Amino acid sequence: MELRVALLGQGFMGKAHSNAFAQVGHFYDTPFRIRRALLCGRDAESLKTMAARWGWEETATDWRAAIDRPDIDLVDIALPNHLHAEVAIAAAQAGKIVLCEKPLALTVADAEAMVAAAKTVRTMVWYNYRRVPAIAFAHRLIAAGRLGAIFHYDAAYRQQWGPDRSRDGTWKMDPALAGSGVADDLLTHLLDTALYLNGAVTQGLALRKTFAPGRQIDDAFLALLTFANGSVGQFQATRFAIGCRNANTFQIHGAGGMLRFNLERLNHLEFADASDAATDQGTKDILVTDMQHPVFPHFWRPAHIIGYEHTFIAALGEFLEALAGDAEFHPDFRDGLAVQRVLAALQQSATSGQWTAIPN
Amino acid sequence: MELRVALLGQGFMGKAHSNAFAQVGHFYDTPFRIRRALLCGRDAESLKTMAARWGWEETATDWRAAIDRPDIDLVDIALPNHLHAEVAIAAAQAGKIVLCEKPLALTVADAEAMVAAAKTVRTMVWYNYRRVPAIAFAHRLIAAGRLGAIFHYDAAYRQQWGPDRSRDGTWKMDPALAGSGVADDLLTHLLDTALYLNGAVTQGLALRKTFAPGRQIDDAFLALLTFANGSVGQFQATRFAIGCRNANTFQIHGAGGMLRFNLERLNHLEFADASDAATDQGTKDILVTDMQHPVFPHFWRPAHIIGYEHTFIAALGEFLEALAGDAEFHPDFRDGLAVQRVLAALQQSATSGQWTAIPN
Amino acid sequence: MELRVALLGQGFMGKAHSNAFAQVGHFYDTPFRIRRALLCGRDAESLKTMAARWGWEETATDWRAAIDRPDIDLVDIALPNHLHAEVAIAAAQAGKIVLCEKPLALTVADAEAMVAAAKTVRTMVWYNYRRVPAIAFAHRLIAAGRLGAIFHYDAAYRQQWGPDRSRDGTWKMDPALAGSGVADDLLTHLLDTALYLNGAVTQGLALRKTFAPGRQIDDAFLALLTFANGSVGQFQATRFAIGCRNANTFQIHGAGGMLRFNLERLNHLEFADASDAATDQGTKDILVTDMQHPVFPHFWRPAHIIGYEHTFIAALGEFLEALAGDAEFHPDFRDGLAVQRVLAALQQSATSGQWTAIPN
Amino acid sequence: MELRVALLGQGFMGKAHSNAFAQVGHFYDTPFRIRRALLCGRDAESLKTMAARWGWEETATDWRAAIDRPDIDLVDIALPNHLHAEVAIAAAQAGKIVLCEKPLALTVADAEAMVAAAKTVRTMVWYNYRRVPAIAFAHRLIAAGRLGAIFHYDAAYRQQWGPDRSRDGTWKMDPALAGSGVADDLLTHLLDTALYLNGAVTQGLALRKTFAPGRQIDDAFLALLTFANGSVGQFQATRFAIGCRNANTFQIHGAGGMLRFNLERLNHLEFADASDAATDQGTKDILVTDMQHPVFPHFWRPAHIIGYEHTFIAALGEFLEALAGDAEFHPDFRDGLAVQRVLAALQQSATSGQWTAIPN
Repeated sequence: MELRVALLGQGFMGKAHSNAFAQVGHFYDTPFRIRRALLCGRDAESLKTMAARWGWEETATDWRAAIDRPDIDLVDIALPNHLHAEVAIAAAQAGKIVLCEKPLALTVADAEAMVAAAKTVRTMVWYNYRRVPAIAFAHRLIAAGRLGAIFHYDAAYRQQWGPDRSRDGTWKMDPALAGSGVADDLLTHLLDTALYLNGAVTQGLALRKTFAPGRQIDDAFLALLTFANGSVGQFQATRFAIGCRNANTFQIHGAGGMLRFNLERLNHLEFADASDAATDQGTKDILVTDMQHPVFPHFWRPAHIIGYEHTFIAALGEFLEALAGDAEFHPDFRDGLAVQRVLAALQQSATSGQWTAIPN
Repeated sequence: MELRVALLGQGFMGKAHSNAFAQVGHFYDTPFRIRRALLCGRDAESLKTMAARWGWEETATDWRAAIDRPDIDLVDIALPNHLHAEVAIAAAQAGKIVLCEKPLALTVADAEAMVAAAKTVRTMVWYNYRRVPAIAFAHRLIAAGRLGAIFHYDAAYRQQWGPDRSRDGTWKMDPALAGSGVADDLLTHLLDTALYLNGAVTQGLALRKTFAPGRQIDDAFLALLTFANGSVGQFQATRFAIGCRNANTFQIHGAGGMLRFNLERLNHLEFADASDAATDQGTKDILVTDMQHPVFPHFWRPAHIIGYEHTFIAALGEFLEALAGDAEFHPDFRDGLAVQRVLAALQQSATSGQWTAIPN
Repeated sequence: MELRVALLGQGFMGKAHSNAFAQVGHFYDTPFRIRRALLCGRDAESLKTMAARWGWEETATDWRAAIDRPDIDLVDIALPNHLHAEVAIAAAQAGKIVLCEKPLALTVADAEAMVAAAKTVRTMVWYNYRRVPAIAFAHRLIAAGRLGAIFHYDAAYRQQWGPDRSRDGTWKMDPALAGSGVADDLLTHLLDTALYLNGAVTQGLALRKTFAPGRQIDDAFLALLTFANGSVGQFQATRFAIGCRNANTFQIHGAGGMLRFNLERLNHLEFADASDAATDQGTKDILVTDMQHPVFPHFWRPAHIIGYEHTFIAALGEFLEALAGDAEFHPDFRDGLAVQRVLAALQQSATSGQWTAIPN
Repeated sequence: MELRVALLGQGFMGKAHSNAFAQVGHFYDTPFRIRRALLCGRDAESLKTMAARWGWEETATDWRAAIDRPDIDLVDIALPNHLHAEVAIAAAQAGKIVLCEKPLALTVADAEAMVAAAKTVRTMVWYNYRRVPAIAFAHRLIAAGRLGAIFHYDAAYRQQWGPDRSRDGTWKMDPALAGSGVADDLLTHLLDTALYLNGAVTQGLALRKTFAPGRQIDDAFLALLTFANGSVGQFQATRFAIGCRNANTFQIHGAGGMLRFNLERLNHLEFADASDAATDQGTKDILVTDMQHPVFPHFWRPAHIIGYEHTFIAALGEFLEALAGDAEFHPDFRDGLAVQRVLAALQQSATSGQWTAIPN
């Protein structure tokens, strides 16, 4: 069955998504033949180059072209954050399958409108890190009770490019286009992973910080969270963690042991198993590349490691499998909305300085 | 010159201090000949065994014996927390040199009284981790400007014995004797190190958590801090970090790079130097055992590593050097009081749920 | 310019090469449009499935089809080792560009014949690990003199599947098809990297070991080597290193410092720089994903790591760049022959128990 | 019971032994009260300083004073290697308990004479690393069959001070006094540990290398070994491993998994357990500081790590326990002789270039 795709966006994410559409058929068995039918972006010149390189059949400089073409089955939104709501709602109303980059929207209200508009279509939010084999394996270990009752769920996303003022002009540094700084960009990843692994957040307290003089958005965002399962967490997102390039990390402690992860070592999951004999206890470095691990077996042989791009391929692959089997898929727009609710409460807390409840 | 020491306390700390008094002369050159003159504790029987093993000349079951004996020059307090103030004040008033285990006291008022009483005598608080070579080296790097302006100072002390209910009867689990749980026990270490490395704290917000049903004290304590130098921090102390045995850690990010430390690897300091060429940047694992590093050269040869006990020997050794040279020494009772002030504000914040200013 | 490719081989390597041909145009700018024209293999049924999945236009069950078709520009050999010589010579004689999986041949004589036959055509041997960014960066550091005079070059390739008797029937376990066990399979990788990084080998002494009773090939191969630059090395290849899945490692010590690598962490290079100040010395973990590092910039952003497959894409990409620019490319068949010469001498040494000189 | 000790030697080892005699009673319960009765060395002036610092009651500039004094119970030899045989034989013939630094002797003949002379007295060789908790724990795991049949036993001792010509005048660089360079100094440690953990060596082939022009002794020593249990090993000792300060390491692979150790991280043992489920396999970093681990419980609490000096204290402590209980103790002079036999065969092999059998 042919699936005609329109990709909206020609930036770094456009490249990552293009690669996913090109590669998914090589590693995932689904009934769908992907046709890279249409690539939309604002710069006609570079759009042509990108289309030629990545095999997009046609291009358009107005995203509405994708909505208007009845032969387009799937619209994939890799545009700046402030456009997500309008485009996704239009696409959903036109009956398209809708994939959307994270964060889902700039506001809870927008996200709710997107969920409402997409009630009858299939959706996905590109919280691709759920398909890191190590994170999917962590999920499996927790679901199997290997960690027991969770006490601590700490997470941090540390990057270092904040001091570079040359990037101040990009849309990511403009609150009107990006929503916020590290909160929408990095903290949302932490929150989606936390909701996936540790369940609902009940309340939070946040501290927002801008280090670069005159900058309009947050450079760092710290928060304390309490979870519905009784655990507590400290969260941090920052672009001023000099020495860390892309350190998306978590550390979980439960009655059954510890799990630790760092995206810079995405093939690894650290596990301390409290059920080991006392003399045998220690932190194990598991290379999550076994044929019995989740996600990985779609790619290569044990210990023939994968990289960043594979998380996009796997997210898309599992989405197509769910589509073919008419099965549930997560994260969908409702999952994206859940992240926005926590984020909005934390932003409110950062403004008020008060503990703020998270509506669930 | 002979220095007659009375040690008060026969527990684990009594053993660590005994070792320091026995060993300091082997590794530090000072004019003092330490005489282990008197060991005080409540259990006469085990006291004799301990005295015989560690070379204490006499024993007494009442700590006042140490105060009353005019030939005692130095009183070292390794008693449960609630006794620190009374004993230290008595010792100071009797003109003794006073060393006191951390935390200095149960309350800021007590700590202030101790500082007042000790105005004319030399004091030390056993925040021994300042003499971990890696921490002393971190201090030197920061003082030399190698880290530039500090953005983030995060610290955590994670232990795992919290679920063990068999220790509920010990003084460390009794708020009347210990003050609090992890806050007085572990968080105080983090705070002293933070004050040493990163300077004054301006405000804080804390979350206290007791996981074990019915337990009277906190099992975990989380806090957000802001520092006078403009940096922000997240702090955590817990006995429910299953998988971590004694993970006293910090991670500091400044314009000049990152420093990272873990007490379980106390001979190591991790350093990412932002002044390296772009292609050469990475996190360096420095074995802090060079003859040009602080503290270490008193002991063995490069890479012939030291352990936990050496931090006590070094603290005592540097105290004796300062005593001989009539030089300043830190941490003294004033430094201990500074920790209490932050701690009290955080306890207040944990109760109120509000950001709380730290008086300096 | 169109480049019509025939791939010979439908196993794991066939998949890795197919991916490289599909992906190279996405990440490397060359004048060539790759057409996956022909896929050859012995099993017609699975060949069709593989061709459909990877976009090969036609299939053939006889590799001679690739040689005979005048429209085929490039023949890529991913067949069992014993077929390399015959096929490569035929392809070269037909004027094709020839790419060949490693090891180049079963014997030095065969390898010499291949070099002779390929004198007027472009060739590549798939020693793909030269394009691991970390290894290419190691080469650059050494070439720039950062390591000074080399004293030690040690290398090991450790896998753990040797005890699995279920694989005894595959061609890799048959000396007639594979040449040898770990020697041809794993040691050849170590040798190519060593020749690349450390130059010519002068003599060697080897020990061959078969642990599995009745097995016809070597399970482990150990060697001592001396290099023309005065350094010494110990080499080891084994499938009985239980606990190691794909640990292709080296450790180099020179007057200027140390380099250390492990393929299981292929984005990392460890570097101890002897020119650092004494207090600053340590082993640095460099994430070789900077825009100024070799190879990596073709792919994603800093710290967005790559995996196993990218080494094939990069090898092919650089080969096409060299082809377009009429520039030298390594490793070509002559480099493959150099590996065979060392290997043959080591096999002879393992038989004789004597030090054996390597002809250069 | 009083045990009057004479220590012969005032260098770095003299300091390490002095510390062991001073500390053993604090951590080990034995019936013996150690009296540090006599310190012998050649430099009267510094001898007095050292005696005062470490509590030696008397000093003598001729080692024969220790033999001649009937009140001396135990003679501890920490003299340059060439003196071991003469002194140990004299001490044994005088009926003393004899402890001797490693290596036992310069030649097998000397070592045999020492064993013969010491037939009726208790002896110990200071292969102190057997008492590293991690190494003792490795021994226990192997003895319990946790590693199954051993396939590979690799060991390396890497230091970096070789290029420093200022040390060329010391006895360690003089073949007449030291026997050899890294072979007697470092390789002997590797061999004793290997004999302890992996049993008898059957044959070996060695390569000796002097990098520093004009130096009389070996700077590096490489060897291949075969063991009586069927395993194979590569061994390396070097002072030219720039970047490694004191990296005494081993890596063992058996049917049951892998063990890995590095003296620079002496509190840690890495263990990959092949009996773990496939998805759970990985390399575990065990902090060997549990109360059920060997050696460690004599010292502090879990994760309160120990250092270099503790291996001397523990060796002495266990020797005294064996002495008190009239139990066997290893390593004694016979164990020291076993090391010499392997060493001598390897030296012979390095000269001849031939595989050489090891007499057992």
